[in-house]
Amino acid sequence: MPKRILRVNMSNLEAKFEDLPEEYKTLGGRGMTSTIVAKEVPATCDPLGPHNKLVLAPGIVTGTAAPSSGRISVGGKSPLTGTIKEANSGTPFSQMVARMRIGAIIIEGKHEGDDYYLLKVTNDGAEFINANKWFGKGLYGVYKDLYKQFGDKVGICGVGIAAELLGGNSGVCFGDPEGLPSRYAGRGGLGAVMASKGLKFIVVDETGALGVEIANQEIFKQGIKKLRDALTTHDVTKPGGALNTYGTAVLVNIINEAGGLPQRNFSSGQDSRSEKVSGEAKAAEIEKRGGQRPHFCNPGCIIQCSEVWVKPGGKDPVGVLEYESVWALGPNSGIYDLDEIGELNRACNDLGMDTIETGDTIAVAMEGGLINFGDGKGALKLMEEIRKKTPTGKILANGTEITGKVLGVTRIPTVKGQSLPAYDPRAIKGIGVTYATTPMGADHTAGYAIAPEILGVGGQLDPRDPNKAEVSRNLQLATAAVDATGYCLFIAFAVLDIPEGLEGVVESLNGVLGANLTVDDVAPIGKSIIDTELDFNKRAGFTNIHDRLPEFFLEEKLPPTDEVFNVTDEDLDSVF
Amino acid sequence: MPKRILRVNMSNLEAKFEDLPEEYKTLGGRGMTSTIVAKEVPATCDPLGPHNKLVLAPGIVTGTAAPSSGRISVGGKSPLTGTIKEANSGTPFSQMVARMRIGAIIIEGKHEGDDYYLLKVTNDGAEFINANKWFGKGLYGVYKDLYKQFGDKVGICGVGIAAELLGGNSGVCFGDPEGLPSRYAGRGGLGAVMASKGLKFIVVDETGALGVEIANQEIFKQGIKKLRDALTTHDVTKPGGALNTYGTAVLVNIINEAGGLPQRNFSSGQDSRSEKVSGEAKAAEIEKRGGQRPHFCNPGCIIQCSEVWVKPGGKDPVGVLEYESVWALGPNSGIYDLDEIGELNRACNDLGMDTIETGDTIAVAMEGGLINFGDGKGALKLMEEIRKKTPTGKILANGTEITGKVLGVTRIPTVKGQSLPAYDPRAIKGIGVTYATTPMGADHTAGYAIAPEILGVGGQLDPRDPNKAEVSRNLQLATAAVDATGYCLFIAFAVLDIPEGLEGVVESLNGVLGANLTVDDVAPIGKSIIDTELDFNKRAGFTNIHDRLPEFFLEEKLPPTDEVFNVTDEDLDSVF
Repeated sequence: MPKRILRVNMSNLEAKFEDLPEEYKTLGGRGMTSTIVAKEVPATCDPLGPHNKLVLAPGIVTGTAAPSSGRISVGGKSPLTGTIKEANSGTPFSQMVARMRIGAIIIEGKHEGDDYYLLKVTNDGAEFINANKWFGKGLYGVYKDLYKQFGDKVGICGVGIAAELLGGNSGVCFGDPEGLPSRYAGRGGLGAVMASKGLKFIVVDETGALGVEIANQEIFKQGIKKLRDALTTHDVTKPGGALNTYGTAVLVNIINEAGGLPQRNFSSGQDSRSEKVSGEAKAAEIEKRGGQRPHFCNPGCIIQCSEVWVKPGGKDPVGVLEYESVWALGPNSGIYDLDEIGELNRACNDLGMDTIETGDTIAVAMEGGLINFGDGKGALKLMEEIRKKTPTGKILANGTEITGKVLGVTRIPTVKGQSLPAYDPRAIKGIGVTYATTPMGADHTAGYAIAPEILGVGGQLDPRDPNKAEVSRNLQLATAAVDATGYCLFIAFAVLDIPEGLEGVVESLNGVLGANLTVDDVAPIGKSIIDTELDFNKRAGFTNIHDRLPEFFLEEKLPPTDEVFNVTDEDLDSVF
Repeated sequence: MPKRILRVNMSNLEAKFEDLPEEYKTLGGRGMTSTIVAKEVPATCDPLGPHNKLVLAPGIVTGTAAPSSGRISVGGKSPLTGTIKEANSGTPFSQMVARMRIGAIIIEGKHEGDDYYLLKVTNDGAEFINANKWFGKGLYGVYKDLYKQFGDKVGICGVGIAAELLGGNSGVCFGDPEGLPSRYAGRGGLGAVMASKGLKFIVVDETGALGVEIANQEIFKQGIKKLRDALTTHDVTKPGGALNTYGTAVLVNIINEAGGLPQRNFSSGQDSRSEKVSGEAKAAEIEKRGGQRPHFCNPGCIIQCSEVWVKPGGKDPVGVLEYESVWALGPNSGIYDLDEIGELNRACNDLGMDTIETGDTIAVAMEGGLINFGDGKGALKLMEEIRKKTPTGKILANGTEITGKVLGVTRIPTVKGQSLPAYDPRAIKGIGVTYATTPMGADHTAGYAIAPEILGVGGQLDPRDPNKAEVSRNLQLATAAVDATGYCLFIAFAVLDIPEGLEGVVESLNGVLGANLTVDDVAPIGKSIIDTELDFNKRAGFTNIHDRLPEFFLEEKLPPTDEVFNVTDEDLDSVF
């Protein structure tokens, strides 16, 4: 059986399998979602109207034995940015969909009326189940219900209360291996797109799935061995390495040291209290409390950077506290308490919200006087406003830019409406080039210049050197290609430094696809994806003028480096 | 003494006169503001940051004996639309500024800290007076205070509570001849620009002013006689004519009859209850109550379309209830009670808000479930939320688009972030072309196609014929030219039909300027202004894709005509 598309029409509650068109057969992940969105969604449509579509696609090697490859891409026109959007997540859900030989789930149309639905997908078909009883409820409880009702072995995707509000800050949530609602395709408000159509959950049951078809087992196995060797060798990705031992939050101390860890709504790049919420401190605390560390977000991951954060005594598991989440809900809000951060992260997961957008929003709300910087208890109360759907909650559910505008704040850290991640672009310029120029709105994963600028991976660059157009471009192209494979972006740490690892990645793709790609094809594949996205954005009304950072980054010096963002407009325009 | 610029630097509280540059000497009104903004304001700047400027400019003939010429243009980069913006108002303030030979007041920089200032301008200079005692207070009371403090003969310009919130719906308010805060350069949030700089009021005292210099008295007098004759002859503008007798609200019945008076957030184009809030009903009520009708917004106006609306018994004068205000705060919100509309209009004036934006915002808030359609008392309570600066109030003060987004409403009637005026573009297509394509965001005054489409002025066109690109363009060019003269746009009714009237306008300009313009120069002058504005917008990131109406106008049929907006994108793109 060849790969299929599951097309879900919410207008008439019809879901049916279609053959995957020939020209989509080599696509996966972001390559698949961006191609379908660019082709099927009118670029000028209302993101929350009937013409937008939500596309979910596992990567090319997802569902196979390839290590660290359980990513799923979610695409559509973003209500937060107005651009094309791809956000991805690691989750068993993706592997199940891939093994069912579903190349993409396309959700289109819009259900009229107030009912919400759950889509149950099996190997043979799909059915709609009324989901109203889970309306307005937190996802921790709901996911527990759903696994109970549909069985432990299903995969779950869903949206929360923020999406019910059609909030620009609402993510698409996937269950982690423990069934916690902690894995998010979080950015860009794609949860609101799903909710706008009347769809609340997708439950997949892979019983009877045939597994991913592998055209050439030999070359595939050879490839994944090379990649596995690279991952288990490189200092960043190996067992007992930085990510495995401390998780992504290992960056807290590193970026703080570099003066690039934004504090209190991007008003400083360093604060000694950040150490209290570092990856090292967190790992020690997890060990003490009896959470899990390391841990994987999907079976078959070698890196295992994940964890399960718990309350003292091992109670009330939250899931992972990623670096970005710790930063956004912590130092950027003036909060230096892991328990407060953990509860804020739980609230994000429970309400269906992106932690980066949420943390930036809280910080802007603090600057706007709603609560004081550092007030963790107050921040948790704000999250309850969202749960209660009060006017304040509705403001916050719409993300950083709208919250800033409503509260009269002029220091709003967003690009194309999406809030900035955990690296201040004044202290570390290359990541700022990525924020400004990626088709996605401010997004660190789109071209992670931190690797060469700070970590010495894939080169060693001066973070304060503003000549970063080329490195950002190259990373953006490579990233777009990786986002199509289903591999976790973190394999890049190893394959940027170990040539055999990159060869292995390409061989694994060739094995699945029966293709003859070489490492020289990686950048062109990435370029083709980004060109598709840029073309969509152009048709949606975006120009180079939108590839800029907010005014204050160009003018306010960032302590302690006293740098401003001084990459020229010409350099930014040269990226694409 | 030649004409001057008063340049006000709020960063260091310095205000000084400069010579008007040679190339600005023939400019006035919108021509002056758009030229200065395009030249001095970086197109990509933050509208509420230090690089934006607010420019006030009386028209070319303002302050002379020319009839109906007391307009003042206010320009800057709009925080509501992100475009260049010009909004204008009729007020004695403009005439005083003109007679002081001030061609433009340019307010730049930004005062750091929480203090607000009043700028007192006399013929010889300007001084800053701390204005903190008027912070947070309604403008009816404040204007009373100010006239008391500075004398009845001064002109006053100011911003209200909505501007203190930096709300995208905050106008620049001018005193009317009775000293009421009822005359607004309302659209586009320019009040927030003024407030963002720390400036709350401008008080002008024209004592010692030399008056407007007139290069050729003879030709000037000949011109204004011709114009006066046209205005006093044409059915729309003459004493006892439609505008004079019923005010602009004479349109309520006419547009309702045409099926183009939007009801309940643009969900219908007609409602028989609209008659209860018609110009005819209002004029009769004013006569009964003892308000004033007719009335002028500035001395020397022949048309005198204004009025003073009062409560029963002649109490608590509000000022004029314009057609747009009556519609926005009335039928579009499902409210058909003149007293409720009057109190909502009072609240807009008192808080410093644009009535169109406010009415559209209330309607969207109703659709979003904050209150019910038709709930006038509830709408008044919402206005009090703004006064109290609650979260709900802060949402509303930011206008229709943000309110819609926050409340999860997808039927949001805006173009470039500015809400639509009182003509549904599905039933009357030409005005829709203007909404979509003017550099200002949805604005009926920018190219008033209603004149030929409904009123039979300047031609007679079928309102439902979608071929309106040319008429909209021609009207937009003519309007930009009129907006530069200082004449009220309503002179157009007469001069479109009476050739001698148009000659008179041109002669009056020649008289003041010592120029040799002909009627053939009018469109090119307008084109040059619009080209300047379009170039600014392009530099600010706008493309033809932004020249579109919201999706629902293209798809939802409007009762009772069952029309959709069917002007093609190609036609819209052909306008400029």
